[in-house]
Amino acid sequence: MIERADGSGPPRRRRRALGVLGAGQLARMTIEAASTLGVPVVLLAENPTDAATEVTSKVLLGAPSDAGQLWALAARCDVITFDHEHVDLEMLTTFEDAGVAVRPGVAAMRMGVDKAHMRATLDTIGVPSVPHAVLDPRGAGGMAAQVEAFSEVHGWPLVVKASRGGYDGKGVWPVSGIEEALAVLRGAEQSGVPLMVEAFVRIDFELSALVVRRAGETLAWPVVETSQVDGVCREVLMPGRVQPPLAAEAQAIAVRVADAIGVVGVMAVEMFSCGGALAVNEVALRPHNTGHWTIEGAVTSQFENHIRAVLDLPLGTTEPTAPHVATVNVFGAADGSDPMHALEGALAVPGAHVHLYGKEARPGRKLGHVTVCGTDPADVRNRAWQAARELGTSVPTQLLRPAGRP
Amino acid sequence: MIERADGSGPPRRRRRALGVLGAGQLARMTIEAASTLGVPVVLLAENPTDAATEVTSKVLLGAPSDAGQLWALAARCDVITFDHEHVDLEMLTTFEDAGVAVRPGVAAMRMGVDKAHMRATLDTIGVPSVPHAVLDPRGAGGMAAQVEAFSEVHGWPLVVKASRGGYDGKGVWPVSGIEEALAVLRGAEQSGVPLMVEAFVRIDFELSALVVRRAGETLAWPVVETSQVDGVCREVLMPGRVQPPLAAEAQAIAVRVADAIGVVGVMAVEMFSCGGALAVNEVALRPHNTGHWTIEGAVTSQFENHIRAVLDLPLGTTEPTAPHVATVNVFGAADGSDPMHALEGALAVPGAHVHLYGKEARPGRKLGHVTVCGTDPADVRNRAWQAARELGTSVPTQLLRPAGRP
Repeated sequence: MIERADGSGPPRRRRRALGVLGAGQLARMTIEAASTLGVPVVLLAENPTDAATEVTSKVLLGAPSDAGQLWALAARCDVITFDHEHVDLEMLTTFEDAGVAVRPGVAAMRMGVDKAHMRATLDTIGVPSVPHAVLDPRGAGGMAAQVEAFSEVHGWPLVVKASRGGYDGKGVWPVSGIEEALAVLRGAEQSGVPLMVEAFVRIDFELSALVVRRAGETLAWPVVETSQVDGVCREVLMPGRVQPPLAAEAQAIAVRVADAIGVVGVMAVEMFSCGGALAVNEVALRPHNTGHWTIEGAVTSQFENHIRAVLDLPLGTTEPTAPHVATVNVFGAADGSDPMHALEGALAVPGAHVHLYGKEARPGRKLGHVTVCGTDPADVRNRAWQAARELGTSVPTQLLRPAGRP
Repeated sequence: MIERADGSGPPRRRRRALGVLGAGQLARMTIEAASTLGVPVVLLAENPTDAATEVTSKVLLGAPSDAGQLWALAARCDVITFDHEHVDLEMLTTFEDAGVAVRPGVAAMRMGVDKAHMRATLDTIGVPSVPHAVLDPRGAGGMAAQVEAFSEVHGWPLVVKASRGGYDGKGVWPVSGIEEALAVLRGAEQSGVPLMVEAFVRIDFELSALVVRRAGETLAWPVVETSQVDGVCREVLMPGRVQPPLAAEAQAIAVRVADAIGVVGVMAVEMFSCGGALAVNEVALRPHNTGHWTIEGAVTSQFENHIRAVLDLPLGTTEPTAPHVATVNVFGAADGSDPMHALEGALAVPGAHVHLYGKEARPGRKLGHVTVCGTDPADVRNRAWQAARELGTSVPTQLLRPAGRP
């Protein structure tokens, strides 16, 4: 509205500007942090109603694979970073080769885009992950035989995963036997999505280690316990059940991965804790849902440190601001009601930091989160859920824990 | 850029939207807080380069006295609030009379616009302020005689103030005798600015009490010590030299004023501490420079609570997040250099929260602030100044205090 798209106007020394590919809630929270530093953000948004478009005057419209708009973005900023992984790595490589600063870097980004590449990289650097095998449609016996062979070693159930992308909006299929597996393989084969198979791990709990890195400087935030229901993160507890020795181990793994792949920016490593041992499950090369607690719960948030890292500025301390922090995600209620109209109840909960992303309410859609910081773990968790419930999010029965433990 | 100015588009239930008259740094920080709550902000900006225009897609261009654009603003939001006091109260009254929600309300707003009205209101409700008299050009003997009469009671020096507006960019003139006073009176008479005279108070230190109010709910943040140099706030210390009994007294005064005038939103009451007694100096009916420390230093910032109050949502707790907080303002350096290009040094200071407002650098212009939270008062103050110095702001000699006290 203000800045002319052709960049015309009175000449003055340009301030640093950050380009973001994608305009969802991560981009929105990145803009909130960038605004405090005085850093302008230019978005490449797929839709004019995307969450972040409302908090910047600088929006380009286009798909993340639109080379013309990507060049327009590159021309208007110093560094390009990402709201999501739905990107064309080959195209981005041509940008990087042409001297455009792409952060975390295309090579590192491949970890977040391609699960098979991620597992192979972890194997190479000796980081434990879940037992897995890449399925090759042209390999011996076809994918069905490869799944059978894998099951003979690891038993049923198994988990079939799309190693890149997915179809029908899904990318993870737990299967209890060969019949179910075959159904998944048939569907995937038609869509051409590449697959892998993983052992079904009986986990004690899940955790996430968040780190930020720029050349010569890597910092880790306190490790959090995360709770997923049906593959979706519902709550994050700092530190939750993560005891100090396990936290140190998880941080060391995340730092080792970050340094090994030379990431620039924030990286989240999601892990399983199984009988005291850790196995990496997912790696995300950007600010992450399991790191939203850092906005109020750490001296420097994941969004500010991501900006600092990709602009090659000194990183801020990752120390927590309170002994216990709980973050609960807010999803659209079944009746389609908008949590914006329920702010009254949520804000009445003492100490509740309510974040709504400005997205149109739809049942099951992630629309926001609530964070509470404090000294008592049960208290912060209860208050966070209380505010989330006010906003229309019900507590999954899987998360109702026995009394006496938070 | 995204939203069409005529409001056309697919119909859907509109979310709450906040209109802000003015687009300076207060509007920018208001948008940062509004974004977390999912509240869209529409600005009425005087210039397309104003600080806040870069962080919203919804900007109307026009003077704060442009009735047409004010109506356009009112049509696009639920509540109108303010970035500054350079407003036309009479025009705003017609909006309020027409049912537009103007917050803090025109009657309350008069306190911030008209110092004579502010002093009279304080007198009425029995709140101590600096000895003062309104000068009446048509009164007995003219203004010169009225200043002489005032000086016979309060002695020299005195302070002549514009009760509304000012001229030549100034509104406060300390005068040491009648000759200097006559020069000020002559200049002011030509410009038609209304004047008052105040006693020159020998103060121990200055403090600011920040409160937020909506109907039935008034909360006070911890009181801060402020340091002004040449009439400009340079640093804010929480709690600085403000001992608990004095803090309680200052909070009680601010709450009394807020309730008496029925303010809706944040209000800052700046006071002098003179021999243990308090006297109100200024009242601001909006988020205030002496409250920027609350962004990191309090559970709920002044910006979020201002938004909550004007949208009639429950207020958030005003408790501090650390025992000591220091905020130092950043001004343009004499050489015109942009602090944006000095972020490297400032962000290397541990725990420094750097805020830059995205304004064009000019010598002496307020361009940002730095906040540090911690447990040791001297340490937080030193780190805040260290970061501010990195950004080009020198420490005024008036603020160099004897060793041994923060």
